[in-house]
Amino acid sequence: MDEGAALERGRQRMLEIHGERSLATIEGLGDLGRMILEVAYGDVYSRPGLALRDRQIATVAVLVALGRSSQLPIHLRSSLKAGLSVEELQEVILQTSVLAGFPQAMNAWSTLKTIASDPDGT
Amino acid sequence: MDEGAALERGRQRMLEIHGERSLATIEGLGDLGRMILEVAYGDVYSRPGLALRDRQIATVAVLVALGRSSQLPIHLRSSLKAGLSVEELQEVILQTSVLAGFPQAMNAWSTLKTIASDPDGT
Amino acid sequence: MDEGAALERGRQRMLEIHGERSLATIEGLGDLGRMILEVAYGDVYSRPGLALRDRQIATVAVLVALGRSSQLPIHLRSSLKAGLSVEELQEVILQTSVLAGFPQAMNAWSTLKTIASDPDGT
Amino acid sequence: MDEGAALERGRQRMLEIHGERSLATIEGLGDLGRMILEVAYGDVYSRPGLALRDRQIATVAVLVALGRSSQLPIHLRSSLKAGLSVEELQEVILQTSVLAGFPQAMNAWSTLKTIASDPDGT
Amino acid sequence: MDEGAALERGRQRMLEIHGERSLATIEGLGDLGRMILEVAYGDVYSRPGLALRDRQIATVAVLVALGRSSQLPIHLRSSLKAGLSVEELQEVILQTSVLAGFPQAMNAWSTLKTIASDPDGT
Amino acid sequence: MDEGAALERGRQRMLEIHGERSLATIEGLGDLGRMILEVAYGDVYSRPGLALRDRQIATVAVLVALGRSSQLPIHLRSSLKAGLSVEELQEVILQTSVLAGFPQAMNAWSTLKTIASDPDGT
Repeated sequence: MDEGAALERGRQRMLEIHGERSLATIEGLGDLGRMILEVAYGDVYSRPGLALRDRQIATVAVLVALGRSSQLPIHLRSSLKAGLSVEELQEVILQTSVLAGFPQAMNAWSTLKTIASDPDGT
Repeated sequence: MDEGAALERGRQRMLEIHGERSLATIEGLGDLGRMILEVAYGDVYSRPGLALRDRQIATVAVLVALGRSSQLPIHLRSSLKAGLSVEELQEVILQTSVLAGFPQAMNAWSTLKTIASDPDGT
Repeated sequence: MDEGAALERGRQRMLEIHGERSLATIEGLGDLGRMILEVAYGDVYSRPGLALRDRQIATVAVLVALGRSSQLPIHLRSSLKAGLSVEELQEVILQTSVLAGFPQAMNAWSTLKTIASDPDGT
Repeated sequence: MDEGAALERGRQRMLEIHGERSLATIEGLGDLGRMILEVAYGDVYSRPGLALRDRQIATVAVLVALGRSSQLPIHLRSSLKAGLSVEELQEVILQTSVLAGFPQAMNAWSTLKTIASDPDGT
Repeated sequence: MDEGAALERGRQRMLEIHGERSLATIEGLGDLGRMILEVAYGDVYSRPGLALRDRQIATVAVLVALGRSSQLPIHLRSSLKAGLSVEELQEVILQTSVLAGFPQAMNAWSTLKTIASDPDGT
Repeated sequence: MDEGAALERGRQRMLEIHGERSLATIEGLGDLGRMILEVAYGDVYSRPGLALRDRQIATVAVLVALGRSSQLPIHLRSSLKAGLSVEELQEVILQTSVLAGFPQAMNAWSTLKTIASDPDGT
């Protein structure tokens, strides 16, 4: 399979997971965006060995633990689309809080609350 | 429910998840161990809102991302007991690698490999 | 003592340390807020073994080192109330800067400067 | 050489690297600003053993990896002045992304894009 | 005051705080060791605005939160010499655990336990 | 170009940069090793826009700042092979120390010292 195929597969996977606006954002990031599409979406997120729902548990937990607040909202929205409930995402935040501290968890909880009240919002 | 109940519930939950040796270790940590039993095991890990298997996905992802290598082996073993396969745990590490970098993931992959070949080991 | 007692003790302790507005914020965080009140305020902050002033030295140092900027202002204000002077808090930031780098310390110093000129402010 | 000399040397070095506005900012940070001028600029940045361009590669990589977003824009601008091209700085971000994860790199790439279109801007 | 004076003051301060073996270690680190002596010990640790005991509260909290395990033992020993009791250091670890997670705190608690049973040890 | 080509290019690039032993290690890491070869070595490290020497400045700085001690020795050795002198690598560590704190830098300085006295060693 050629690299163009990985890129195209990444575009499709990102569209399914995050939607058109996210794809447009990532395509505005030049070679970094290309690499994220090929590697994170065309490769990792396209692997059959773990359900999307489970990948989102890991992703949300890591973003909360590392305090990556910029990428958290889009991944919380995609997690809801992938079948995780608001309550399950709250549990993921609680689970992370004992491993990475309460301050990070507080910010994440507030972000989730906002998104839960407007899951399709800007 | 009194606090002694939270502690006792935490002890039971830790026994179920990690086994006797881990409980002995945690009980050697004084008030910190007591707090971990009450809060992490008697409260968070005892909540019904998320399956143990899913909690372990979050836990392993966070430990890998933060480089908490001391606690990773015991949680990898408990993840296998909780129903995650070696292959699924590899996927969790791959998912984490794109969010937190390859160096952390390399160490975690090696640890998992060792544990997979001796899941009940020391 | 029952868990409701830990929660109530946490509420009282948070009121003493941070005031009503912070309590309202934390009570808006559902089970995470409940857990923070029980564990951080009803347990840790209520323990007699270390003065509140000393706990705030540790807290401010950790928030600066980890770059937890959302929680820093409220803890700087509470540190002033707990008896630390602006000058002592500056020393805590300087001490942290050699352990965690200058960039974090610069942000914290600016935040402290703003708060020092308006300790009761929004 | 006396400490006043280290401070004066730091002021000159900071002026050369970042310009007047940055010097004014740092001089508003009291003893922390004085220490940064003496140590980071009067000592480290004044050492002959590594070119300024190379120091900026290290600096940008570390700021991206640690997510120190407040200090990144000024160091990206100074890196351009020190002879690194926008394309080379993009490579530094790509190199960092495999070590520290894509989320940090995405934020940095966007910041660089903004600065590249207005290198002398506010 | 000349820079040689800052270095000499740093040597004296390090001797007082950590003892001869630590000074020998730091003097084996070339220009980095010289910079640490001048800046951390000749400047920050020599400032009158905060007691040594209080500086050690901040230092231990930051080392625990960031997982800097190599430097933790020597700073725990120096904290005992500076007047903090084992019980107070345990409180610092508990305080840090709610801000930075339990795994880091567990390692620190064990290290402290070892040191408490042999405060002058190797 | 097909993905097998990226993998093969990554193998060649890793051999040039780190040598056979490292390639054997990475090939023992299953799909993670394959991804690192394709992405980090077949893609990023194979890009013409930044010299290998400059990529190693960024890499060493990030590994020091994040405390990734497992991967530091091999990258220090490869940096020497890529044309950085021991003295330049010391400057990279000093530059990183003001951004990420002295404790990380101390460990890195010691590692570099060991490697400098035995650059081809185990």
